[in-house]
Amino acid sequence: MTPEQFRKQGYAVIDWIADYYERVETFPVLSQVAPGDIRAMLPADPPEQGEPFDTILPDMDRVVLPGLTHWQSPGFFAFFPANTSGPSILGDLLSSGLGTQGMMWVTSPACTELETHMLDWVVDLLGLPTRFRSDGPGGGVIQDTASSATLCALLAARERVSGFATNEHGGTGRLTVYCSTQTHSSVEKAVKIAGIGARQLRAIPVDGGFSLRPDELERRIREDAAAGMTPCFVCATVGTTSSGAVDPVREIGRICRQYGLWLHVDAAHAGAAAVCPEFRRIHDGVELADSYAFNPHKWLLTNFDCNCFYVADRKTLINTLSVLPEFLRNKATESGAVIDYRDWHIPLGRRFRSLKLWFVIRHYGAEGLRRHIRRHVELALQFAQWVEQDDRFELAVPPALNLVCFRHRNGDAATQTLLDRLNTNGRIYLSHTRLDDRLTLRLCIGQPNTEARHVEQAWQLIRKTADEMEN
Amino acid sequence: MTPEQFRKQGYAVIDWIADYYERVETFPVLSQVAPGDIRAMLPADPPEQGEPFDTILPDMDRVVLPGLTHWQSPGFFAFFPANTSGPSILGDLLSSGLGTQGMMWVTSPACTELETHMLDWVVDLLGLPTRFRSDGPGGGVIQDTASSATLCALLAARERVSGFATNEHGGTGRLTVYCSTQTHSSVEKAVKIAGIGARQLRAIPVDGGFSLRPDELERRIREDAAAGMTPCFVCATVGTTSSGAVDPVREIGRICRQYGLWLHVDAAHAGAAAVCPEFRRIHDGVELADSYAFNPHKWLLTNFDCNCFYVADRKTLINTLSVLPEFLRNKATESGAVIDYRDWHIPLGRRFRSLKLWFVIRHYGAEGLRRHIRRHVELALQFAQWVEQDDRFELAVPPALNLVCFRHRNGDAATQTLLDRLNTNGRIYLSHTRLDDRLTLRLCIGQPNTEARHVEQAWQLIRKTADEMEN
Repeated sequence: MTPEQFRKQGYAVIDWIADYYERVETFPVLSQVAPGDIRAMLPADPPEQGEPFDTILPDMDRVVLPGLTHWQSPGFFAFFPANTSGPSILGDLLSSGLGTQGMMWVTSPACTELETHMLDWVVDLLGLPTRFRSDGPGGGVIQDTASSATLCALLAARERVSGFATNEHGGTGRLTVYCSTQTHSSVEKAVKIAGIGARQLRAIPVDGGFSLRPDELERRIREDAAAGMTPCFVCATVGTTSSGAVDPVREIGRICRQYGLWLHVDAAHAGAAAVCPEFRRIHDGVELADSYAFNPHKWLLTNFDCNCFYVADRKTLINTLSVLPEFLRNKATESGAVIDYRDWHIPLGRRFRSLKLWFVIRHYGAEGLRRHIRRHVELALQFAQWVEQDDRFELAVPPALNLVCFRHRNGDAATQTLLDRLNTNGRIYLSHTRLDDRLTLRLCIGQPNTEARHVEQAWQLIRKTADEMEN
Repeated sequence: MTPEQFRKQGYAVIDWIADYYERVETFPVLSQVAPGDIRAMLPADPPEQGEPFDTILPDMDRVVLPGLTHWQSPGFFAFFPANTSGPSILGDLLSSGLGTQGMMWVTSPACTELETHMLDWVVDLLGLPTRFRSDGPGGGVIQDTASSATLCALLAARERVSGFATNEHGGTGRLTVYCSTQTHSSVEKAVKIAGIGARQLRAIPVDGGFSLRPDELERRIREDAAAGMTPCFVCATVGTTSSGAVDPVREIGRICRQYGLWLHVDAAHAGAAAVCPEFRRIHDGVELADSYAFNPHKWLLTNFDCNCFYVADRKTLINTLSVLPEFLRNKATESGAVIDYRDWHIPLGRRFRSLKLWFVIRHYGAEGLRRHIRRHVELALQFAQWVEQDDRFELAVPPALNLVCFRHRNGDAATQTLLDRLNTNGRIYLSHTRLDDRLTLRLCIGQPNTEARHVEQAWQLIRKTADEMEN
């Protein structure tokens, strides 16, 4: 494809995407296909001869669209959102177009330096502790997901506590790791991957608001230490997946300092809210953390993948993950004056992901980002009020920022029926969880195209469906 | 940004990329900036107010371009290539635009089913063993990089040999892992991450062609077993980073079967060559492997990130990496009729990466992909002949596909001077390695825009530089 052909076909793809956003509201949010439907539309064998691009693009409508669950629909209220925005898509397009590799500073200095700079900007934007800035011993890096960030934090903790002996000799099954019963499953996955073992993961009980109980944490750490184990790592969550609960980071941090544990704070979704000063209370105590992560790709208008991962002491992370073969040696690295991000995560190769973050921050400005967050929180509070005012429903917890957890008062069967009917209707998509062992619906308002009218429509649909269930 | 604004700004970005490819040859291949130069051009603080997109895009020229090492320049001969192509960039753009999450089948059935289908197509395109197809017990998935694929293979091997006890109880420091002295550093990184321990990694000696010696492998496995260790995993390489050496996979596979080890084949770069029947000899014995990986993002016109990772037994991989919290439960998953790719790799969230692979395979067809590979191999053979005919240089090994390893006969100092002068000249970028403990230059011809004239120019520049070194 020549540059001129690329120009022509590129316009066509840009048009397709612009058109998609103009009509996304007309599609069923949750794809209605059955397993195998999409594959059945594809030829069994790859083509021998190439095809003109003009014949490929129409298959986006014919083959792909029916099989999409529309994360960019204003009726998407499931899970946590996966934000995109125009400037982000275009920043990502430039990354694809440049096709540059940022594994080391020398392989594209701009890729490394813009990333470091953006991660410092984000510290300012969120009012995070300055210890996470790159001008001290700490610093930030873009990871693909919070799962990977959690794994890297756990590995650095494992090596710090063992004096880098695990890297050398392997696991001992004697390290213990702590989270709450509400913590994301990625911690269990990381504990398995790192060779620590799921039996050494302690799920600490939570209080009535689903936040980790520090007294139980401290008790368990002391118990493990007394039993000859080595307590190593705590993952505190700011905004749990099930209910948006915020763990008491300050108190957990105090315990971690006292007993020498690594504290990682996972603010994957809720962290974005800290662009607004009035929500920065969620980060109270984060200056006690050894590492911190949140995903602009969830709720900050930056498309996947973009996780901002910070450490207070970059040397420990780098020493944990660094392997330097001859073919990667170079003068810039040896000078010590540059960052080589390949030593900050699992993969070696890396995209120029900071471009999209740069474009988003500049296009919206701090002010625009705050407006984006505030609007969703207001809509969620409004929705929660409606739920409270309807006798048939109850809130499982007070709304946490943009997440509302509610259920039918008639019990799990009614809540399940409600969920199934809503999601097959096609206008909205909700997901669920269990809180206090009761089935609970999650309605998360974070899609950039969601306006007040969409939330009103969702509420009308929920009421109407509940009405129908009574007949 | 409204759809209409996106349309306008999207055209501008498409134009910028088309223009970039038209002028990429005019830039110094290796960025000439000093550490800190790029950051010095950026404002210290993030903007409070948003900016119009029109003022952001020009900074690609002002700030970013000087700091790029141009991986898409026809003069880029360093490392392994990082291919892009028009159809791939546009497929990736659609993925960014849709902003869909493919963590489970239900969260976008098309994202999962197109991926499974493309991975099956690639089995056909490369003539890989049918055991890697999804219609039996095996199957493929797109990972970000070969490093992650290697880690997942190692984890599955660790769990298979331990009956999933390591996931539960943690490492024991008793598993041993095998590769050659030439194997990519990602294996050492994975061994550390997985809690197996670098001391348990055996770097097996190579033969004169830098291929792993099976006799030495078998000897070491027996020795370890006799010492009470549990030999667990072998990584065989098809196309090593330093010299393009191909390990004797068939013989290694026989040994792995005999002693019960997991065989992973890392064909990250060279695997792409198997689109051509005449190069499929590199995969001799791959049907004995438990897992196999190669990167279309290196040499198959598909931009980063896109690693194709295959397993012969998907259940072991899934059981190794699966954690199912309540909030991800759904009927499709419970039916067993669908694939949930979140259980096939480290991250939970995932992009719609198969779109770019689909576009590339359709746009070029098998025929076009073969032409792409053959052209580079022919150019490399031509270049190697020129090296052989010049008394001042010697080939370190016979050329392996598209990689030529050579050095100055006057020794390491002369080779280093040659490398430094070539890379500061700006016309080309080479990287280096050590073979037989001698500094060796690597010239890899894999950039899609590289034509015969660029290779001729590179050779003239090398000769001229060597001439100047004599004066």
